[in-house]
Amino acid sequence: MRYELYYWPSIQGRGEFVRLALEEAGADYADVARMPARGGAGMPAMMRLLSGVSVACPPFAPPFLRVAGTEQLIGQTANILLFLAPRLGLVPKREASRFWAHQLQLTIADWIVEVHDTHHPIGGGLYYEEQKREAKRRAANFCVERLPRFLGYFENIITRNPGWAGGLAGRAASYVDLSMFQMIAGLRYAFPRTMAKLEPKHPGLVALYDRISARPRIAVYLASKRRIPFNQSGIFRHYPELDTSSA
Amino acid sequence: MRYELYYWPSIQGRGEFVRLALEEAGADYADVARMPARGGAGMPAMMRLLSGVSVACPPFAPPFLRVAGTEQLIGQTANILLFLAPRLGLVPKREASRFWAHQLQLTIADWIVEVHDTHHPIGGGLYYEEQKREAKRRAANFCVERLPRFLGYFENIITRNPGWAGGLAGRAASYVDLSMFQMIAGLRYAFPRTMAKLEPKHPGLVALYDRISARPRIAVYLASKRRIPFNQSGIFRHYPELDTSSA
Repeated sequence: MRYELYYWPSIQGRGEFVRLALEEAGADYADVARMPARGGAGMPAMMRLLSGVSVACPPFAPPFLRVAGTEQLIGQTANILLFLAPRLGLVPKREASRFWAHQLQLTIADWIVEVHDTHHPIGGGLYYEEQKREAKRRAANFCVERLPRFLGYFENIITRNPGWAGGLAGRAASYVDLSMFQMIAGLRYAFPRTMAKLEPKHPGLVALYDRISARPRIAVYLASKRRIPFNQSGIFRHYPELDTSSA
Repeated sequence: MRYELYYWPSIQGRGEFVRLALEEAGADYADVARMPARGGAGMPAMMRLLSGVSVACPPFAPPFLRVAGTEQLIGQTANILLFLAPRLGLVPKREASRFWAHQLQLTIADWIVEVHDTHHPIGGGLYYEEQKREAKRRAANFCVERLPRFLGYFENIITRNPGWAGGLAGRAASYVDLSMFQMIAGLRYAFPRTMAKLEPKHPGLVALYDRISARPRIAVYLASKRRIPFNQSGIFRHYPELDTSSA
């Protein structure tokens, strides 16, 4: 089965959570918007599906996924992972475990919005420079209140997981663990000083990060050109003035 | 089957999306945190599950659901609806339709965050009065950019739905339609002037609102004491200074 992922071609963004799952599983997939437009792919292909009048079920925004050769488009990052994970062997088989993994992924989705809004607290359509004053206030609140709350919650989940010592859900690495790896990676890029202070209190998450980044397929992926570097257009951005180490 | 819903007892909030589904289906359920603490229910019961050290899979925040007599807690509003909808007959049976309905629900979830952040753009732990200046800017952006974008998207989805003339997903009223009713109700409460200007451009959504509010069980529920009135502690709040009718 071949998967087509549609996402903005120049950032990790929300698409990265899907890429990590596809890479870990060694899935056959195309990152369509990063392919040449000449061959019928690229950004034009993505925009056609996003705004095309002939699409019955258009997504609100990227990322979205299509099983090659089918019509169905699946949008919303957590929904894509809900669809993919059983097919890629990245979630336990029990129904209760799948709801639990999805619940954790949705909590990560909430967290991602809060990370994004540290640099865009007024509006996504405005430049950072147009909302820098508000960003400083929001980022300070994030570093002091919200970031410790999210990290503490997930550290607690790892500690309580009766299945696999070291993972968030079940007995083996799941897609939620891959997403948590990405959160830690992004937070280290965006808030290095704050994370340096908080990490010693969250050894389970740090160990999870190390374990995921050492998985053979993930390690190969991270060293490849398929992994887009963090940059100042993505969700995780490094503005030193927002990294208030007073946390 | 009896369901236990756990949510803050004095606001509609995110719990209302679950309440509407349970009410429409005529389900047997308890709104636990609104019951007397003497009988072992009430807020103490909710807080025990939220922070109890003996809970293996604690939710990050309310709402969460339990099937009475079982251990499993299901958190995250959209996840609760994903679990409940097939059991309550509020979603089509085809797998593709369920992913589509869930995708729409997750887009509504994103929209709810943006509604909340119009009055709390800096931090949920601060009072509105402490972030009023930023709230005015964010609300203006919401009314001009984001609200029309979300309304336009869902109006488009109703128009394209090949199944049921008037609903968002499938041939019959689904939980997504109930959630959309709640969005329109809340937006009318919070942004009456802006909504009065935008509604004529979105006749499908207005008709959906009318149709859902007239459904027999929903009409009974809305007139009952079980429906908590909108108030200034919920997600939808009416601050006239944020309702910029320039939209």
